[in-house]
Amino acid sequence: MTQAVAGIVRELTASLGGAVITDPVLSVGYRRDQSHLTTFGTPAAVVRARDVSDVVATLQAAHKYGVPVVTRGAGTGLAGGANAVDGCIVLSIERMNRILEIDEEARTAAVEAGVINGDLASAAAACGLWYVPDPGSRDISTIGGNLATNAGGACCAKYGVTADHVARIKAVLPDGQIIHTGASTRKNSAGLNLTQLLVGSEGTLAVIVEATVRLRRKPEGVTTLVASFRDPADAVCAVMRMQSVADPCLAELMDRTTIAAVNRMTKMGLDESAGALLLVQCDGAGATEEVKCCAQACSDSRATELYVTSDAEEGEALMRARRAALTALEQLGSTLLDDLAVPVPQLTHMLEAITHIADRYGLLIGTFGHAADGNLHPTIVFDSRDEEMVLRAHNAFDEMVARCLQLGGSITGEHGVGLLKRRYLTRMVGAAEHQLMAGIKSVFDPGGILNPGRSL
Amino acid sequence: MTQAVAGIVRELTASLGGAVITDPVLSVGYRRDQSHLTTFGTPAAVVRARDVSDVVATLQAAHKYGVPVVTRGAGTGLAGGANAVDGCIVLSIERMNRILEIDEEARTAAVEAGVINGDLASAAAACGLWYVPDPGSRDISTIGGNLATNAGGACCAKYGVTADHVARIKAVLPDGQIIHTGASTRKNSAGLNLTQLLVGSEGTLAVIVEATVRLRRKPEGVTTLVASFRDPADAVCAVMRMQSVADPCLAELMDRTTIAAVNRMTKMGLDESAGALLLVQCDGAGATEEVKCCAQACSDSRATELYVTSDAEEGEALMRARRAALTALEQLGSTLLDDLAVPVPQLTHMLEAITHIADRYGLLIGTFGHAADGNLHPTIVFDSRDEEMVLRAHNAFDEMVARCLQLGGSITGEHGVGLLKRRYLTRMVGAAEHQLMAGIKSVFDPGGILNPGRSL
Ligand SMILES: Cc1cc2nc3c(=O)[nH]c(=O)nc-3n(C[C@H](O)[C@H](O)[C@H](O)COP(=O)(O)OP(=O)(O)OC[C@H]3O[C@@H](n4cnc5c(N)ncnc54)[C@H](O)[C@@H]3O)c2cc1C
Ligand SMILES: Cc1cc2nc3c(=O)[nH]c(=O)nc-3n(C[C@H](O)[C@H](O)[C@H](O)COP(=O)(O)OP(=O)(O)OC[C@H]3O[C@@H](n4cnc5c(N)ncnc54)[C@H](O)[C@@H]3O)c2cc1C
Repeated sequence: MTQAVAGIVRELTASLGGAVITDPVLSVGYRRDQSHLTTFGTPAAVVRARDVSDVVATLQAAHKYGVPVVTRGAGTGLAGGANAVDGCIVLSIERMNRILEIDEEARTAAVEAGVINGDLASAAAACGLWYVPDPGSRDISTIGGNLATNAGGACCAKYGVTADHVARIKAVLPDGQIIHTGASTRKNSAGLNLTQLLVGSEGTLAVIVEATVRLRRKPEGVTTLVASFRDPADAVCAVMRMQSVADPCLAELMDRTTIAAVNRMTKMGLDESAGALLLVQCDGAGATEEVKCCAQACSDSRATELYVTSDAEEGEALMRARRAALTALEQLGSTLLDDLAVPVPQLTHMLEAITHIADRYGLLIGTFGHAADGNLHPTIVFDSRDEEMVLRAHNAFDEMVARCLQLGGSITGEHGVGLLKRRYLTRMVGAAEHQLMAGIKSVFDPGGILNPGRSL
Repeated sequence: MTQAVAGIVRELTASLGGAVITDPVLSVGYRRDQSHLTTFGTPAAVVRARDVSDVVATLQAAHKYGVPVVTRGAGTGLAGGANAVDGCIVLSIERMNRILEIDEEARTAAVEAGVINGDLASAAAACGLWYVPDPGSRDISTIGGNLATNAGGACCAKYGVTADHVARIKAVLPDGQIIHTGASTRKNSAGLNLTQLLVGSEGTLAVIVEATVRLRRKPEGVTTLVASFRDPADAVCAVMRMQSVADPCLAELMDRTTIAAVNRMTKMGLDESAGALLLVQCDGAGATEEVKCCAQACSDSRATELYVTSDAEEGEALMRARRAALTALEQLGSTLLDDLAVPVPQLTHMLEAITHIADRYGLLIGTFGHAADGNLHPTIVFDSRDEEMVLRAHNAFDEMVARCLQLGGSITGEHGVGLLKRRYLTRMVGAAEHQLMAGIKSVFDPGGILNPGRSL
């Protein structure tokens, strides 16, 4: 332990007492997130902040001693963003989980950053309102983590991602200063958009401690459509056709490998003869009409089977099948989950590339994702004890990312860069642009103590 | 003329020839935007860039000589953002007006920054697509200017502002480097959000030369509702009620003074007994149903008259009445137009404050605006030859802004800060936050040559 680290641990223990964990046995759960094959170290201490003043105290001390701080929400991230580095302070926000206010008239909620997404959604629903962003991890991830990664959800196709539902952020700069960004108003053109700069910044600029998010009226009447296709290209064609006749809230895709894995785990009896399956939902007063248009778009795109239901529970059961995709693939071995986004018309090329790469590397790759957004999660299944196979998995991963970039895509649609995607960032955004990002990082964090070595 | 200015004018004239205007008589139209009571200077030259290379050449020269550059779209701004400073180069983008591509499958359009909003909208419509942002100035303002100010439009309530419809920006840094921000994909969590940083940056960070914007399917069937209220507070109440039963694309408000002015100019015969008038539109398959719910919300809020029409032309005629508001008030004298945004539930307090301020200062103030967004344009009418009255107008303006801030509002909902609102910015965003903005400005523009003295 360096002198600086010993100093900060002493100081934090003295000032924050029970909020500080230094026992490595107890802090083991704070070393990494849910990503695989990312590196992680051992923190010098974990601070489980109870309130803003704990965050300020931690950052002031870290600033003084020049010790790195890794901010952590629930640790459900899939890119290694919350992984500890050796000798750092892990600053956990999970205990700051109070919903401060739900303003029904203004349709906003003010929450501490550690509030679990699903808890906010329930509290909003109890007031007849809807917190829209619903990542698959909604029951286990925090609003702060959702903001820091700009998490997506099922219905982004119609309603947008986390970024689209935040009005204000309260954050603490690495020197302990508190800032407030944005406005409670629906429109605001004053100054530079610091709010959208913090969204997706993955803990590199400031620690988010509170947020004011927007709530909506929840449209009634969800209608669900399931369509099977022999060829994944037909499914993509259907998605594009749909989008020119309707405004589906989601269009989720599962490939053959994923369908089989889900069936194996859930016994749901999805159509295994299909090369791809689409799950589509429309909502609102026109939902049934819209789904009809979507079904027609599927028929016109050579769908082999169609099933429509306006039963909410049945729709939810089908969504559960889709949400089970990752878990089902995880039953088959170790997994390396990717998160690529391409323009929707390029989806066919991306899907083809994934198939070729799987063949060439002799790997099982199950692909599912948010087709309406062009956001795919090809998931490589491998045996982590087989070193040669691990290497193959990595190379296949690299090639998928490279192909995605060729197709004008993004290296991450919703999981963030973290450690997993860092080596691709400059290639995607460009050197001058990357330098601007680094410059902005220096404005917020001149000492470079926040989440060093990741994201940017 | 300083030596630097003489040098740059010589160099630009030599390299760009006919694109450079140095004759002060010819450049007079490039000295200011459409705002009143903002200061403006005389440029050393105007460069009417024909393409990106003209922009690069201009910035490289300005960088070399340390001469300020004021970027200008169509000059329709209402905050003085494009006003020249003495001895600057005005860099006009208006000739860069090519629509580069409309990708019907990806539903995006790539345009040069000088394209007029309405021209893009028409080109999109010709492909059966919709470019949503529709500021009142859509037929005269540029996409670059819309992005730089984050312009609002009529239907932001449902579909968002300019920021919500941009995927990528190509811009030139003050040293002549070209950058590309964002991604063509619908979702992207890679790195810091430079796109949303450029949106609303009012020409202080970089010169926007191209943008890729998103297009949508245009929902058919607009239904329009006009409702009269004795008391503006009832109209606000109606807006809040509506928003919990429907998703109107717009809810525009006109107060008594505005109604009278519009009638005087257009002979439209709007209800002059009303204290406030609401114009509401819903669209899509459920439009008629939704408008019914909105009408009920108005009745429940003591509306004195209701009128509903599904006739598109009649709806458009009513919208024209609303759009005529500013011009109608301008018939009555010189005007000082404000652009305040408050949380919707605070609208009543803001409207009351405006009335009191008008009374106290003995001024005519006509208020209209985007009620669904809490965005009001109180417009002070005065005699510009009467110095004492000009002073009163300024003081009344100051007081409105102060009250807006007290109510948790923003000093600008859509027009930007420019020169007009600069003195209020720190008060609104806070000192630490303002310093971060200045730091970011320095990262992009270390020499401080872009739009000095405004916005930030
Ligand atoms: C089963 C499962 C399903 C998932 N489904 C989705 C999905 O559908 N869509 C999706 O986008 N993601 C999904 N994820 C990934 C993950 O849940 C999201 O990235 C989520 O936003 C992370 O939240 P968290 O609280 O766990 O953050 P963490 O994992 O703790 O942290 C994530 C990043 O944010 C930073 N951070 C966290 N809190 C703060 C804060 N308060 N201030 C500043 N920085 C902070 C961390 O430093 C780190 O860089 C899923 C994960 C799992 C395990
Ligand atoms: C009749 C009328 C109605 C209006 N209605 C609305 C409305 O409904 N909603 C609304 O929001 N506004 C409205 N406006 C204001 C104005 O039209 C908008 O602010 C518009 O976005 C300005 O576009 P412009 O091309 O005229 O930009 P300019 O006025 O030329 O410039 C505005 C600002 O943007 C910067 N800028 C311009 N182009 C670029 C570029 N390419 N790169 C970098 N910076 C640039 C300038 O430096 C300046 O700071 C209205 C104005 C008028 C006259």
